[in-house]
Amino acid sequence: MTIENAIATLRDRFGDQLSTAQVIREHHGHDESWHPDALPDAVIFPETTEQVSEIVKICAAESCPITPWGVGTSLEGHALAVQGGISLDLGRMNKVLEVHQDDMDAVVQPGITREELNAYLRDTGLFFSVDPGANATLGGMAATRASGTNAVRYGTMRENVMALEAVLPDGRVIRAGSRARKSSTGYDLKGLLVGSEGTLGIITELTVRLWGQPEAVSAATCAFETIEGAVNAVIQTIQMGVPVARIEFLDRRSISAVNDWGKLGLPDQPHLFLEFHGSESGVKEQAEVFGEIAADHGGLGFKWTSNAEERANLWKARHNFFYAMRAQRPGAKGISTDVCVPISRLAEMLLGARADMEALGMDGAIVGHVGDGNFHAGLSFDPDRPEELKKVKQLAGTWCERAIALGGTMSGEHGIGAGKTPWMRAEHGAAVDLMVEIKRMIDPKGIFNPGKMLDVN
Amino acid sequence: MTIENAIATLRDRFGDQLSTAQVIREHHGHDESWHPDALPDAVIFPETTEQVSEIVKICAAESCPITPWGVGTSLEGHALAVQGGISLDLGRMNKVLEVHQDDMDAVVQPGITREELNAYLRDTGLFFSVDPGANATLGGMAATRASGTNAVRYGTMRENVMALEAVLPDGRVIRAGSRARKSSTGYDLKGLLVGSEGTLGIITELTVRLWGQPEAVSAATCAFETIEGAVNAVIQTIQMGVPVARIEFLDRRSISAVNDWGKLGLPDQPHLFLEFHGSESGVKEQAEVFGEIAADHGGLGFKWTSNAEERANLWKARHNFFYAMRAQRPGAKGISTDVCVPISRLAEMLLGARADMEALGMDGAIVGHVGDGNFHAGLSFDPDRPEELKKVKQLAGTWCERAIALGGTMSGEHGIGAGKTPWMRAEHGAAVDLMVEIKRMIDPKGIFNPGKMLDVN
Repeated sequence: MTIENAIATLRDRFGDQLSTAQVIREHHGHDESWHPDALPDAVIFPETTEQVSEIVKICAAESCPITPWGVGTSLEGHALAVQGGISLDLGRMNKVLEVHQDDMDAVVQPGITREELNAYLRDTGLFFSVDPGANATLGGMAATRASGTNAVRYGTMRENVMALEAVLPDGRVIRAGSRARKSSTGYDLKGLLVGSEGTLGIITELTVRLWGQPEAVSAATCAFETIEGAVNAVIQTIQMGVPVARIEFLDRRSISAVNDWGKLGLPDQPHLFLEFHGSESGVKEQAEVFGEIAADHGGLGFKWTSNAEERANLWKARHNFFYAMRAQRPGAKGISTDVCVPISRLAEMLLGARADMEALGMDGAIVGHVGDGNFHAGLSFDPDRPEELKKVKQLAGTWCERAIALGGTMSGEHGIGAGKTPWMRAEHGAAVDLMVEIKRMIDPKGIFNPGKMLDVN
Repeated sequence: MTIENAIATLRDRFGDQLSTAQVIREHHGHDESWHPDALPDAVIFPETTEQVSEIVKICAAESCPITPWGVGTSLEGHALAVQGGISLDLGRMNKVLEVHQDDMDAVVQPGITREELNAYLRDTGLFFSVDPGANATLGGMAATRASGTNAVRYGTMRENVMALEAVLPDGRVIRAGSRARKSSTGYDLKGLLVGSEGTLGIITELTVRLWGQPEAVSAATCAFETIEGAVNAVIQTIQMGVPVARIEFLDRRSISAVNDWGKLGLPDQPHLFLEFHGSESGVKEQAEVFGEIAADHGGLGFKWTSNAEERANLWKARHNFFYAMRAQRPGAKGISTDVCVPISRLAEMLLGARADMEALGMDGAIVGHVGDGNFHAGLSFDPDRPEELKKVKQLAGTWCERAIALGGTMSGEHGIGAGKTPWMRAEHGAAVDLMVEIKRMIDPKGIFNPGKMLDVN
């Protein structure tokens, strides 16, 4: 029972669909997180569900770890083969299998990226909504329960995956969910697999919900005197039922970074970036209502545009915040924190984070999916100075604990991956035991993405 | 290890919180389904989570079945003690524990009904949206993954339960989910328990999402020449992103029943009933857009009202469809079918159902949550004529199979309960094995709601 035996058997069976070349292993050995590289012993490129099942059976017989791979955009080390074994690259399974326009859904393979899917859908009048910024694969996004800027209107992967097919750790293939919009039949295994980070099943097909492209879209920016003012404007906007499609917070430090990166020329103040979707008159009404709310909360001027290019530039700058921050400190790495709290506690959480960073002399910037109560602080560190990483990790851990104490969660959308397992019990209490029992029952050999999410030993 | 021992121990411990009185057992021995009565050996009325945990431990030691009870509105026999044992009545745990206005959520005990919760919320500007018609308890609704007429806009219990506390079959208490709007931390145990029909855990607390009461509400009725016309109008309405709050189909037979019951005086044609929520101008725009769509699909006149009393009367008649049908045949019982299909297949499914009933000379009426692709046919039978029940069950089974073949599900919202287990494999294939494995792992003695949903023997 060894990894070597598994690789030998896989090579016999799959030929050059398996690679042990150093460059391939290195490519699959690092992601966009702060975690150190961890190379798999081999990388395999299955082309069908049957091949995935066969690979899993071979690995199971040899207790060889399998870590699924999409495109490596994880911010928490999900796709790193921290215990070696096989990296299972789903990139060749990247087809759109079916689009059902009347039903507004699509059946896709897991290796397709969200931009590829949306390019495919361009002429249908429909779009796939979940947008984590990175051009991630849908399989990876489902496994991480990803969301992003427009989850406040269209939901996260939890709401947008209608059905899936997955290979279990013994090679069995199951299907969960259906194309029906709702169902009350049996345990929600689809929900159990979405967000399971590859530890229970390898997703080999997904049915995702699509949305109608809105008749009109407009974007807006609004500067605020204070962080509290911005957050209170968000609370009131949500409470009044204004169906904002995106409502994002950027602190002064973030505005400075995105100004530099995207040449936006925004004033040096905390901002909200918004997007409105609807009919022509609906979008106008939403913008007007928001404008009044903003004025009541110290908004310093509200600019809106329905020009597509200006909108694109705005969101590109926002999405590239992470890279923008990195560009300001060449050679540095970054941890992107990801707590999510009830929105009534968001201002308190944000101000505390800001104060902590200042007290520690850290150059962190904060952006947030504030409609959901979720924000990210980009904390940079020099990888050659371990004491910097230690300080940054400690601060991120403090915020996890604080978010949990405020009734929230340590991760709104990035997941647990290789680094946040120690806080699982703080967040979930005795429920962690049940998670471990489920993991052990479904994956008794512990071969699916070992070293992630749960401590099963 | 006997039920008698469990009851003796429970009586010692809980005194008159336990009852074996015939009238109490009978009350807990029937629900609103077609299933024959099944009396528990005793009924217990816990008042706290700790008491539920203690009761479960006592029953576990004696392998005594426990069937949770809300108010008995199940249409699928969920709450019937088909293997005897204890009926666990959660009616005394019916408090609102917290309302968070800024966060738009509430923490409640499971025994509160949706009308009680909404009465409590009346002055907050918020409401709890899920409305299955019956005044069910929130615990029961969560366990059944209930939905109802406005799920098309506000989602089902799946989307509206944010967190819960549950007692597992060994007496352990776990909490799953949080008040954060989203999370990517660990397996979705909340999702696993919602819809598990009391077979994995007894829900002892829920945090539910609330929504802002809309500024304006209007209701509309529209008659159509044909069923296809009505369904196609729905498809186009959804595709155009009109945010209808309710969009319900009633066939001619249903219109006749609700006319009799509610004195509505509607024309003898298939109808859509709609409700629009939004701003004054938004509601007007939605109604106008729908009016144009209806006219394109053989709509015979579209009447709308923002008069609260007229609206209430309309929805009361719709909600009481089940009783209205029963009233037409005194002494009869009814099966309410519940298939849900992709909306593109809905007209085909509805027409087939209509044709089947006519071929068999059955007096069934059809209503549907058509925005979700879900409909109910009320099939009545004389409980003293077993051959009638057999015919009705056979037809309902045929529709389950047809819905599954069309990419749908046998139950959109009523659940599996005591009668639909035989179709679980047709719908879920090999995933049923995983469900059974999960059930056996969490409830090895099979004491939680035995005889429901899964065949675990």
